Amino acid sequence: MGTYTSRRASISPHLIRRTVFVRKRKPEEDDETDQKTKEDDEHSWSSHTLQSFVSLVDGDFGYFEFSIQLTQHVLHTAAAVAWEAGKPLVIEEVEVAPPQAMEVRVKILFTSLCHTDVYFWEAKGQTPMFPRIFGHEAGGIVESVGEGVMDLKPGDHVLPVFTGECKECKSCKSEESNMCDLLRINTDRGVMLNDGKSRFSIKGKPIYHFVGTSTFSEYTVTHVGCLAKINPAAPLDKVCVLSCGISTGLGATLNVAKPKKGSTVAIFGLGAVGLAAAEGARIAGASRIIGVDLNSKRFEEAKKFGVTEFVNPKEHKKPVQEVIAEMTDGGVDRSVECTGSINAMISAFECVHDGWGVAVLVGVPNKNDAFKTHPMNFLNERTLTGTFFGNYKPRSDLPAVVEKYMNKELELEKFITHEVPFAQINKAFEYMLKGDGLRCIIRMDA
Amino acid sequence: MGTYTSRRASISPHLIRRTVFVRKRKPEEDDETDQKTKEDDEHSWSSHTLQSFVSLVDGDFGYFEFSIQLTQHVLHTAAAVAWEAGKPLVIEEVEVAPPQAMEVRVKILFTSLCHTDVYFWEAKGQTPMFPRIFGHEAGGIVESVGEGVMDLKPGDHVLPVFTGECKECKSCKSEESNMCDLLRINTDRGVMLNDGKSRFSIKGKPIYHFVGTSTFSEYTVTHVGCLAKINPAAPLDKVCVLSCGISTGLGATLNVAKPKKGSTVAIFGLGAVGLAAAEGARIAGASRIIGVDLNSKRFEEAKKFGVTEFVNPKEHKKPVQEVIAEMTDGGVDRSVECTGSINAMISAFECVHDGWGVAVLVGVPNKNDAFKTHPMNFLNERTLTGTFFGNYKPRSDLPAVVEKYMNKELELEKFITHEVPFAQINKAFEYMLKGDGLRCIIRMDA
Repeated sequence: MGTYTSRRASISPHLIRRTVFVRKRKPEEDDETDQKTKEDDEHSWSSHTLQSFVSLVDGDFGYFEFSIQLTQHVLHTAAAVAWEAGKPLVIEEVEVAPPQAMEVRVKILFTSLCHTDVYFWEAKGQTPMFPRIFGHEAGGIVESVGEGVMDLKPGDHVLPVFTGECKECKSCKSEESNMCDLLRINTDRGVMLNDGKSRFSIKGKPIYHFVGTSTFSEYTVTHVGCLAKINPAAPLDKVCVLSCGISTGLGATLNVAKPKKGSTVAIFGLGAVGLAAAEGARIAGASRIIGVDLNSKRFEEAKKFGVTEFVNPKEHKKPVQEVIAEMTDGGVDRSVECTGSINAMISAFECVHDGWGVAVLVGVPNKNDAFKTHPMNFLNERTLTGTFFGNYKPRSDLPAVVEKYMNKELELEKFITHEVPFAQINKAFEYMLKGDGLRCIIRMDA
Repeated sequence: MGTYTSRRASISPHLIRRTVFVRKRKPEEDDETDQKTKEDDEHSWSSHTLQSFVSLVDGDFGYFEFSIQLTQHVLHTAAAVAWEAGKPLVIEEVEVAPPQAMEVRVKILFTSLCHTDVYFWEAKGQTPMFPRIFGHEAGGIVESVGEGVMDLKPGDHVLPVFTGECKECKSCKSEESNMCDLLRINTDRGVMLNDGKSRFSIKGKPIYHFVGTSTFSEYTVTHVGCLAKINPAAPLDKVCVLSCGISTGLGATLNVAKPKKGSTVAIFGLGAVGLAAAEGARIAGASRIIGVDLNSKRFEEAKKFGVTEFVNPKEHKKPVQEVIAEMTDGGVDRSVECTGSINAMISAFECVHDGWGVAVLVGVPNKNDAFKTHPMNFLNERTLTGTFFGNYKPRSDLPAVVEKYMNKELELEKFITHEVPFAQINKAFEYMLKGDGLRCIIRMDA
């Protein structure tokens, strides 16, 4: 495979349904090219099937630049394979098949580790699926695209996302839902939707995918709907954390809880997601951000994220919802629950003020948990809702979150506490298991 | 007590803190008076303490019309007294004391019977409080006002409301809450806030108030914050039903569930409140309104309120939430629960579509009920909330609901299925206990 730029190219018939990216270029523009920004250039590209491209260049109306994928072959690359539940990953040479229809092969530059990777790697409580390539927070560059992919071309900068946006289903067409009917997260599926097969193999033996992303690999294949195309000027080693946890917490506050300027917000759980929710409250202009965590060591770090007060439920005899209600003359205006503990969920709901309080659940509960409260808590005009990926539609909304970072509204550096070369990926797991730090960036090229 | 209109009046010192209603009237307006609407007139009235009025008329800047309450005495009037739980009411001659500070004495013209009256009259499960004057849905005319009452004057048309709006507390000042800290419903209080005493007595023996309204009396005394001043052109025998149940159901849909035009709505419970919720969905332009009730006889009547489909849970083996999800390709957009049954609440929540579904609880649960669901139902972006009096602020918002009736957007006639003279008030109880009809209007003058 290669990307070529030329005025004309000879086209072999077997490529006739491949996608071609065409940029119409007038001769007088020649001298201006260097002055144009990369982004401007991108806007003038259009995509075609090779067939429609052939009819296009058969006309006679100017000069063209075009990129064309001439071949698509299996790549031999390095990936961190989980062979067994809870055992260290092993860097292996893995074959990565070319992207099929509506799929994209991405060169991963940076990936980071999220609790969900660890949860499924430990495989406690779920059906184990091994060998598997984990990883779902990452930043990369499109290497090649499969048939029918029109929105992305080689060279585009992308964030892979564990849930997708097909843009065709009822959920994608609704203004409110980001829970795509086709590409909604599926942790039990280890293969591609297109043909039910894996694109990863070792000596022909398939290796399972994970949530459609499998970013612990130098190259991965994802559905086009699971890639957010972002500003190529954004540093991928920073914005890669927006693929999952940070956007989830941030969106839970900004898109769902929507605290008004000056309001009070309680955040349950001060891990990366909770701190991102606090960051959202800080951006929204909350006057008080109350952090709740069973580990008081987290309180100092949390101040950087705008948290103004702390409550450790273990240090109080009363239920934490009562402690918070007393601190705030009846309850907080908003709360965001980021632990997944059922008791924290109930507390997060019951600590909001009647008449207007809104509680947002983010943390993923256990299978057999039951949320339980007295219905009068609802009748008194409290609202309980939940969010999935912070209500962001991955393709439509993530580019704007990246811009929030670019214009310095959102701070990402403070979430990144460690960095390791790919060869030491197991260290990232150790940090997380010890509860050391927030996000560990794994550099694929190191 | 009397209302006088004159250019001047002699003022006794003991009246110096009473409220006076003044209308500045220029001489050239004299001939136009008849052409002005009643409403226009009202806008030119202002209220003063008698003290400030004295300084006002001591100046020399025009003509005034003014109403002044010269005396306030105990009224002897007819009221329907509940002497014992569950026993027929008895029409008695009752003394009604003058309104104290921030109180208003109202001549009730029409009242109607709501389930809440019956519930507390039966006194099953609550501490009984007898003798008591029930009644909280009504329409009347202000007879006299107590010290400090500036917003109402004798002759104003009002709807008494079981919950108030002081306009001063944190809840009243919030845009979202209608749960006034001072005047929030209190079913355990049988006396006035001002002095902890009742304004009703029979031969000196106090009779308890009910939820601050006690409208089963020709005259009643309420806190000024529990009276909505409405358009005097509105027929009180119709709009009196807006005092409680109808506004509650209507507001649950229009103010809280807020279905978009074309959306699907499920209504649990097809009594007066549920049908008012359906009426709200009809007004909002819902494309499908699914009525759920254990009594299939209600389905025919419900069609008048826009209900398009019916589900009787008793006729299905599957849980009703599954039946509804199948009818609607995954769930309704909105649901409103108007029964108070805990199982209906859970079904109402679980029958909304993921990604955007909102369920609103209206029906009042039992003391020991627990709402229980799997937290993933929230994580999948369903929202559960509740409402009290349809989120209407009584004084600020009810006048506009009356206008909705006046401009024929809202239909009230179909809620009124019976009418009885005051002497036959126990018949209204019989209708309700039999489940016969929706609202029975009790005419006080008949």
